[in-house]
Amino acid sequence: MTGHFTTSIEFQMSLLLFVSLAGYLLATRIHQSAVIGEILVGLIIGPSMLGWITYTNFVQSVAHLGAIILLFVVGLEFKIRDIFNIRYGIIALVGVIIPWIGGYLVTTAFGFSQENAIFTGTALTATSIAITANVLREMGQLQTEAAKAIIGAAVIDDVLSLLALSFSEQMVTGDFSFASVGFPVLKAGGFIVAAIYFGTHLCRFVERLDRTSISQKFPEFVFIFVMMIAFLYAMFAEMLGLSSIVGAFIAGISLEGAVIRNGKDYKHGAEYLHIIFASIFFVSLGILVDTHVLTSQVILFLISLTVVAILTKVIGCFIPARMQGMSFRDSAVIGFGMSPRGEVAMIVGLIGLNQKLITQEIYAAIIFMSLITTIVTPLVLRQWFYPAQK
Amino acid sequence: MTGHFTTSIEFQMSLLLFVSLAGYLLATRIHQSAVIGEILVGLIIGPSMLGWITYTNFVQSVAHLGAIILLFVVGLEFKIRDIFNIRYGIIALVGVIIPWIGGYLVTTAFGFSQENAIFTGTALTATSIAITANVLREMGQLQTEAAKAIIGAAVIDDVLSLLALSFSEQMVTGDFSFASVGFPVLKAGGFIVAAIYFGTHLCRFVERLDRTSISQKFPEFVFIFVMMIAFLYAMFAEMLGLSSIVGAFIAGISLEGAVIRNGKDYKHGAEYLHIIFASIFFVSLGILVDTHVLTSQVILFLISLTVVAILTKVIGCFIPARMQGMSFRDSAVIGFGMSPRGEVAMIVGLIGLNQKLITQEIYAAIIFMSLITTIVTPLVLRQWFYPAQK
Repeated sequence: MTGHFTTSIEFQMSLLLFVSLAGYLLATRIHQSAVIGEILVGLIIGPSMLGWITYTNFVQSVAHLGAIILLFVVGLEFKIRDIFNIRYGIIALVGVIIPWIGGYLVTTAFGFSQENAIFTGTALTATSIAITANVLREMGQLQTEAAKAIIGAAVIDDVLSLLALSFSEQMVTGDFSFASVGFPVLKAGGFIVAAIYFGTHLCRFVERLDRTSISQKFPEFVFIFVMMIAFLYAMFAEMLGLSSIVGAFIAGISLEGAVIRNGKDYKHGAEYLHIIFASIFFVSLGILVDTHVLTSQVILFLISLTVVAILTKVIGCFIPARMQGMSFRDSAVIGFGMSPRGEVAMIVGLIGLNQKLITQEIYAAIIFMSLITTIVTPLVLRQWFYPAQK
Repeated sequence: MTGHFTTSIEFQMSLLLFVSLAGYLLATRIHQSAVIGEILVGLIIGPSMLGWITYTNFVQSVAHLGAIILLFVVGLEFKIRDIFNIRYGIIALVGVIIPWIGGYLVTTAFGFSQENAIFTGTALTATSIAITANVLREMGQLQTEAAKAIIGAAVIDDVLSLLALSFSEQMVTGDFSFASVGFPVLKAGGFIVAAIYFGTHLCRFVERLDRTSISQKFPEFVFIFVMMIAFLYAMFAEMLGLSSIVGAFIAGISLEGAVIRNGKDYKHGAEYLHIIFASIFFVSLGILVDTHVLTSQVILFLISLTVVAILTKVIGCFIPARMQGMSFRDSAVIGFGMSPRGEVAMIVGLIGLNQKLITQEIYAAIIFMSLITTIVTPLVLRQWFYPAQK
């Protein structure tokens, strides 16, 4: 294979999509979600093992598009009022703070630097909405009180984690003064409040756009507009010191309610973009892992991190749930149900690695921690709490 | 605006999509197709005028994805048997040869080099399927004999032009021996025959894939597979010395017939990808034009080239149509109907410019020639041939 050939866009795209398909096949074989299969196959063909593809600028660009589209589509699934439930908000908040502290402590205990510890703490904060919801749906438990608490808290969790990510970047790259941490909080809060306030207007605007003659003539007009908003919000978020994916997520939540009649269905459209580009994003996560860093010391750290990740989430969510009067069993289900880390933990790792704020060891530990918590949680839930639905 | 900020993916994506929307608005205002609006607005924000965006590596990558997806979607609209009608084939063939000769002669007459002349000739060969079909549909003439001949010949035209492009690249970069021209013809012919032969099997394979348990569990599986095939064919085409877009086009034709029941509709999916990425492709064509090269000499060349483009297509398609016994009026409608040059001419220009085989003057002339023929043809058809439907 010549250098020119293996760096051609056609080669990289077809290989990335081929690997994604292989990931689906592997996932079915090992009874896991497609995301896990894609990461594992990405790991196999990447520099860690076969070396068929490297993390080129093109892969990085397409994966970046994928991360933005992914969070936009996740945002499209949630209504603004889901975010503002105070009971779930408390579960989410305690379930973010305790894992952050746990991640920070275990990382410094292993002698890693403060930058690494801050990013690892942040990576432990976010519950994977997709994986949790999928597990509960598979077990037919989506309409229970515990499931609603898990999903509600997981959504708020994501917002809090994305904020934590933005602050981590600020803390690591800047200084620790109030101006550098407090001001971003204000900016971020301002952006979210403005976006949510503006969100209803945006929905109405999209609906009005949909009724114009231009949308009747060109049904694709509204879809292009909506995707433009997704990237525009991502850009604004980044300008304000938030992570760009927070912006995409908020764009998604804001646009959730718009009802389209003439134009092409933008939710379908975003979903199709998501299929191709989020797949490539997950494959790229595997490509980025360098398993050569997995010395026995790193593996020990990885195991400790995973145990801390599960315990802190279980404790951090069990306590506030129990204090709100939920049953012991429901509180425990919520605790374990919040344990899987997914996209956001991986994105935190990715951003840290790309900006050279965390080491390859930490990145690999975060990715494997995400994978293991995701694999273990469904097993625990099925085995301990819902043996009947096995 | 800082350097970092204006090169961020979020900024570039949102600006490109914003420009695309502005292109739609402009197109509606001037009663032209969206493509023309997008190119014109791209020209305005590009280095030619406002300089808000340049042709960065990212824009180039996304536009390249757009060109491949565009030709794949065009291919999906045609059945293999449309391509193999001998009567339309003859109209297409003569209507490719005469414009090629005309373009070659007018370019050398203006003192440009042979490389430039070969690429300009090639750019004159391809009729724009999209624009022609759209004009005929707008006038309610899609089911006439002349319209069918135009569309049939335009499809064959596209294949011939894409082949001509591949050979132009060979001729300009290599030598003129039989081995360098004859061998590529064989390889290209072999690829097309193999792809078409394999096409039916591929459709059956996709349908079988659609009925597997993996496709029932993951409805997106078939869509990822289909897009993988598009990029794989593009890669094979490029490896065989054809242009990668020929491969994408052939992948589209091959997959046209697959009937999907369980999985997501891959034609819808490709269409959504097309909406976003082909828009960006057209905007990028405008960004690449540098109007500073339009001296009075270049404008004179551009006018001559446009006149040659229309006359050679009118004559080259009128004669074979008339010889097949069509009426004078129908033959003239076919001749003018085949005149608009579109995507393929622009892609020829783009490839020539990217590989530094043609000058900025020639590139600008090709883009403006495409725009003018596209604007003039509907006017002529409405004014001269279908005044009642105005």
